[in-house]
Amino acid sequence: MAKEQKRLEEKIGKVPEIFKGLEKTDPDLYSKVMGLDQMIWDDGALSRQTKKIIAIAIAAALRDDHAVRAQMAGAGNLGVKKEEIEEGLRVAFLLAGMPAYVHGKTVLEEELG
Amino acid sequence: MAKEQKRLEEKIGKVPEIFKGLEKTDPDLYSKVMGLDQMIWDDGALSRQTKKIIAIAIAAALRDDHAVRAQMAGAGNLGVKKEEIEEGLRVAFLLAGMPAYVHGKTVLEEELG
Amino acid sequence: MAKEQKRLEEKIGKVPEIFKGLEKTDPDLYSKVMGLDQMIWDDGALSRQTKKIIAIAIAAALRDDHAVRAQMAGAGNLGVKKEEIEEGLRVAFLLAGMPAYVHGKTVLEEELG
Amino acid sequence: MAKEQKRLEEKIGKVPEIFKGLEKTDPDLYSKVMGLDQMIWDDGALSRQTKKIIAIAIAAALRDDHAVRAQMAGAGNLGVKKEEIEEGLRVAFLLAGMPAYVHGKTVLEEELG
Amino acid sequence: MAKEQKRLEEKIGKVPEIFKGLEKTDPDLYSKVMGLDQMIWDDGALSRQTKKIIAIAIAAALRDDHAVRAQMAGAGNLGVKKEEIEEGLRVAFLLAGMPAYVHGKTVLEEELG
Amino acid sequence: MAKEQKRLEEKIGKVPEIFKGLEKTDPDLYSKVMGLDQMIWDDGALSRQTKKIIAIAIAAALRDDHAVRAQMAGAGNLGVKKEEIEEGLRVAFLLAGMPAYVHGKTVLEEELG
Repeated sequence: MAKEQKRLEEKIGKVPEIFKGLEKTDPDLYSKVMGLDQMIWDDGALSRQTKKIIAIAIAAALRDDHAVRAQMAGAGNLGVKKEEIEEGLRVAFLLAGMPAYVHGKTVLEEELG
Repeated sequence: MAKEQKRLEEKIGKVPEIFKGLEKTDPDLYSKVMGLDQMIWDDGALSRQTKKIIAIAIAAALRDDHAVRAQMAGAGNLGVKKEEIEEGLRVAFLLAGMPAYVHGKTVLEEELG
Repeated sequence: MAKEQKRLEEKIGKVPEIFKGLEKTDPDLYSKVMGLDQMIWDDGALSRQTKKIIAIAIAAALRDDHAVRAQMAGAGNLGVKKEEIEEGLRVAFLLAGMPAYVHGKTVLEEELG
Repeated sequence: MAKEQKRLEEKIGKVPEIFKGLEKTDPDLYSKVMGLDQMIWDDGALSRQTKKIIAIAIAAALRDDHAVRAQMAGAGNLGVKKEEIEEGLRVAFLLAGMPAYVHGKTVLEEELG
Repeated sequence: MAKEQKRLEEKIGKVPEIFKGLEKTDPDLYSKVMGLDQMIWDDGALSRQTKKIIAIAIAAALRDDHAVRAQMAGAGNLGVKKEEIEEGLRVAFLLAGMPAYVHGKTVLEEELG
Repeated sequence: MAKEQKRLEEKIGKVPEIFKGLEKTDPDLYSKVMGLDQMIWDDGALSRQTKKIIAIAIAAALRDDHAVRAQMAGAGNLGVKKEEIEEGLRVAFLLAGMPAYVHGKTVLEEELG
């Protein structure tokens, strides 16, 4: 599975610890999610960088700090620009309110500031 | 204000009726929101097409059918490809669950199918 | 129970059908919720009118059209002004995004327009 | 801008740090949001105190601790009474569940207890 | 794939149309989601009936009418009792508010009333 | 009231501090909520253990860490098995996304790991 994790790492920038833990505690769920994850993050009509920006904007819109941090952690490794994430967060502002923007912006400054 | 609406129309593809109505019922709010909207949708680090995909993904993640339809309505006019929106919805699936994907996919098929 | 419903009607403007139905299908739950409801809507530090405006703003922020309609239906009977509800929805805009405002504004125009 | 911030401070009780930061990092977004914010919080059909109570109730309903704290921080300075906020949170209880009430009540006790 | 769909049908009671459609429009996503779905709904520490009740309670708590209907549609075929679903919705009431209960109860009466 | 709290403790495993505090600060709300709570958690068509699993799954789906912890704290005392909660969280994964699962799984490992 190490190779799969490496391939996923290349796609999402950073694999969350809890997800790695799944390999031992829930091998079935792990492999199923790994397969789904690999496919969702594949470069396709959208690049993995664009998908990462979308993921951060969604996590911010949901006020999900854990998810914002998990996604943001990989963004830098993927070469996503700070300005791109910030503009994605503006869309979250319009659709989910100022606090959604503030959640994302705060983590953005901490991680890529 | 007609000119401003035209400029916004070019950016988001379609201006919702309720928003147009604001011009009469709440001119102050209208101009403030118009100004914010214009700026958020400007091409910048991200294109308006990419921002539209983000907006659709967020609306789907929030299970907000009205917002999904409002955003989707403009996507076609902006030349956003169906495949791009579908991949954005896959990210919504991962972050917000299968129903979020189904909400978006259903409207996608209706509008751009 | 008819008297209790009448007293609740005076407080919230309109008792939803489903809630009335509870009296037969779930008398225990009905009486417990009735008691809680009566107390929450009592005039106190805030008037029932102000509480109704808060309820509409929360329902809009949650994108809960059913709840927006249920709360809005009672607002008119309580003498809540359209302008007051609209300003409450602006706060929902700031905290939960433009679609939250649009949800509420649309129902507001239909019910009190 | 210092004057504008002072005027906003009078309206919302306290301007969040992140928002002040926007003035430097995103002057355009800052001025647009400042303008929208000023208008939303203006005394009108509802007083700024009532709007603050609505904002706290919405933030609690959304389980948004950051927003609850940001809004609560200004409430005291605006002379909003603890009892008024607590009754607003009861409406959040009814519409968004006991945890929404508990989120708000916990911060209320810390800030205005 | 027909056999897989049949097996899933036995587990969740009813496979949503949109999901069946995925088999043609997105075979990759379809098979990945099919695999995940099969595993999540397997009888294990919890029966598929209990999982269905949990799914309905979550969908109601999220105010997701589409998901409530999709899950409820399968509940009857699985032999889930109306009383069990109603008690699950009471937990949704406590954690997500009265409207969450009303959403679920309304669909419950329509589907299993 | 001490006796009532003891009876509730037997049903939900652990009564949150804030709720105990309500007895003094809001005796009316306290007794109303106590009555509703007692009824919702009663063994009925579903056992209190199953209701606890549902409550944890809903709290995870709502990304409500406070509620996840409050519910999880009582699960162990009620004899709910870790595997049962984990399977409930898988349903939350399907309906509310991977982060919902991760929220719940993280607390599960801390409390019952």
